[in-house]
Amino acid sequence: MKKGPEDPTDLVARARAGEARAVARLVSMVEDGSPQLREVMAALVPHAGHAHVVGITGSPGVGKSTTTNALVTELRKPRRRVGVLAVDPSSPFSGGALLGDRVRMQDHATDPGVYIRSMASRGHLGGLSWTTPQALRVLDAAGCDVVVVETVGVGQSEVEIAGLADTTVVLMAPGAGDGIQAAKAGILEIGDVYAVNKADRDGAEQVRRELRSAIALGDRPEGAWKPPVVMTVAQSGRGLDELARELDRHRAWLEETGELLRRRTRRAREEIEAIAVAALRTRWEDVSSHDGLDALAEAVVAGAKDPYAAADELVATAGS
Amino acid sequence: MKKGPEDPTDLVARARAGEARAVARLVSMVEDGSPQLREVMAALVPHAGHAHVVGITGSPGVGKSTTTNALVTELRKPRRRVGVLAVDPSSPFSGGALLGDRVRMQDHATDPGVYIRSMASRGHLGGLSWTTPQALRVLDAAGCDVVVVETVGVGQSEVEIAGLADTTVVLMAPGAGDGIQAAKAGILEIGDVYAVNKADRDGAEQVRRELRSAIALGDRPEGAWKPPVVMTVAQSGRGLDELARELDRHRAWLEETGELLRRRTRRAREEIEAIAVAALRTRWEDVSSHDGLDALAEAVVAGAKDPYAAADELVATAGS
Repeated sequence: MKKGPEDPTDLVARARAGEARAVARLVSMVEDGSPQLREVMAALVPHAGHAHVVGITGSPGVGKSTTTNALVTELRKPRRRVGVLAVDPSSPFSGGALLGDRVRMQDHATDPGVYIRSMASRGHLGGLSWTTPQALRVLDAAGCDVVVVETVGVGQSEVEIAGLADTTVVLMAPGAGDGIQAAKAGILEIGDVYAVNKADRDGAEQVRRELRSAIALGDRPEGAWKPPVVMTVAQSGRGLDELARELDRHRAWLEETGELLRRRTRRAREEIEAIAVAALRTRWEDVSSHDGLDALAEAVVAGAKDPYAAADELVATAGS
Repeated sequence: MKKGPEDPTDLVARARAGEARAVARLVSMVEDGSPQLREVMAALVPHAGHAHVVGITGSPGVGKSTTTNALVTELRKPRRRVGVLAVDPSSPFSGGALLGDRVRMQDHATDPGVYIRSMASRGHLGGLSWTTPQALRVLDAAGCDVVVVETVGVGQSEVEIAGLADTTVVLMAPGAGDGIQAAKAGILEIGDVYAVNKADRDGAEQVRRELRSAIALGDRPEGAWKPPVVMTVAQSGRGLDELARELDRHRAWLEETGELLRRRTRRAREEIEAIAVAALRTRWEDVSSHDGLDALAEAVVAGAKDPYAAADELVATAGS
């Protein structure tokens, strides 16, 4: 067993001890599809499951980065350890993400209780990458109490973030074409908590009213969660304490009702499925160009092996 | 081990002893994708490789069925055992194939030295099914000296039959729009032997001349096979002796040059690949609906299993 700075078990131990560099290295291994990814995941999984995963989504311009920044400030008041994963589907780079991290989150850049990471989207469907749940697991296992995932809310990725998060915050703002439009866009299906940001501007109250009546119209079984609407001014920090309280209240509700386990099981299902499909895809692509295919074909022609046994061997060794 | 009329080893033994019903049953098992197909193939493979596989292709109306019928008569003169596989891509049925067999081949319907079988095409690419090489193997292992595969020559299937056969006969006829057209259609790439059928009609000599000059123009390395052009009148049997001699001559050339082994190895490669891809496709389709997926997801959430190990289990058990 290789031991050293790149040993997954060692890296995980150092990440759990609070070493930011080890956390960063683990997320990079996830992003780069490191050959040691399996070992990394095996080392992480026993320590994961503590963090409250909060997704923040919304149309461009509503103030997602500012809100995330202000929320982290709020969450740090009781010294909670916070992870931030900023997923930008429009960013073609991931190596350059460090600069983006500093610009977005300069208030927390030197706080050892906050891990910040930008990820370029690598999603094959144009939305969130399937490496995102794995990066979440790194921050979770590293001991974060809350992990905030911020993503640009464009179409598919809104739904995907709802699949990833324990609690999804949908951010709106006056004049951003939100409000009634939102109901049409199906955004009312995914929010656990709504925040109307830039609440000091004209039209904010109108957005709140429309949201509330749309939520009231929704058909909910008894005991179901009724999404609250919080008014915030992220720039000044106004309303962030209420947003943090609503997140805690939702987390408590998730645990009491068993919904947390259901959401996480669904998430794990999708993650396993994505890994399995990727593995099968690799094998598929490898089948025709496989080194052993000629020898197998010769064995079949010689009568030494039947084609099914040969295909089994091919499938078993392809892609590895 | 189940023993009885459906036991693959037993069926193969009976087919090799000359029992036509056992041959028919084995081909049906291939066509129907029997669950015992693996056992059937394992039992057949050690006995296969003796038969000379001759493909006959050509445009509709050139007389493929008549030529096949007359060729079987010719091949039976020295009492060779002959198998005929008629692949009709336009036929939507396979159960009704028996009637077609009799109509096509009534001259040989009662000859115990001739096995005749029609197969409906099930090719996923619209051409020959990948069960065709497996059906060929049945006839081969049953002790046929020659297996003739007759197919409608439309586009892709011409190329496919060239991949399946040791020797490909391209059939032409005057007035069938063949001749110079053929060169354009790339038919000159696939023929090992050309037969101009209906040689008693006007224009036959013209087709021969055009074919010969097109063949002469071809760039051949030294020692390469130069495709002969045979004139036939399948209806009366004229020229069939020459066609049979050319087939034997080509088979001898294939063996002397090692080309036979190369062609058969390529054929086995494609067969193994097709089986492997089909197996992977089945697993793929099964991944999302797999019974065990929930339990695996729960184990991941509980921290008892990492998602890669879970995906491995999923892939290993899916599709079985």
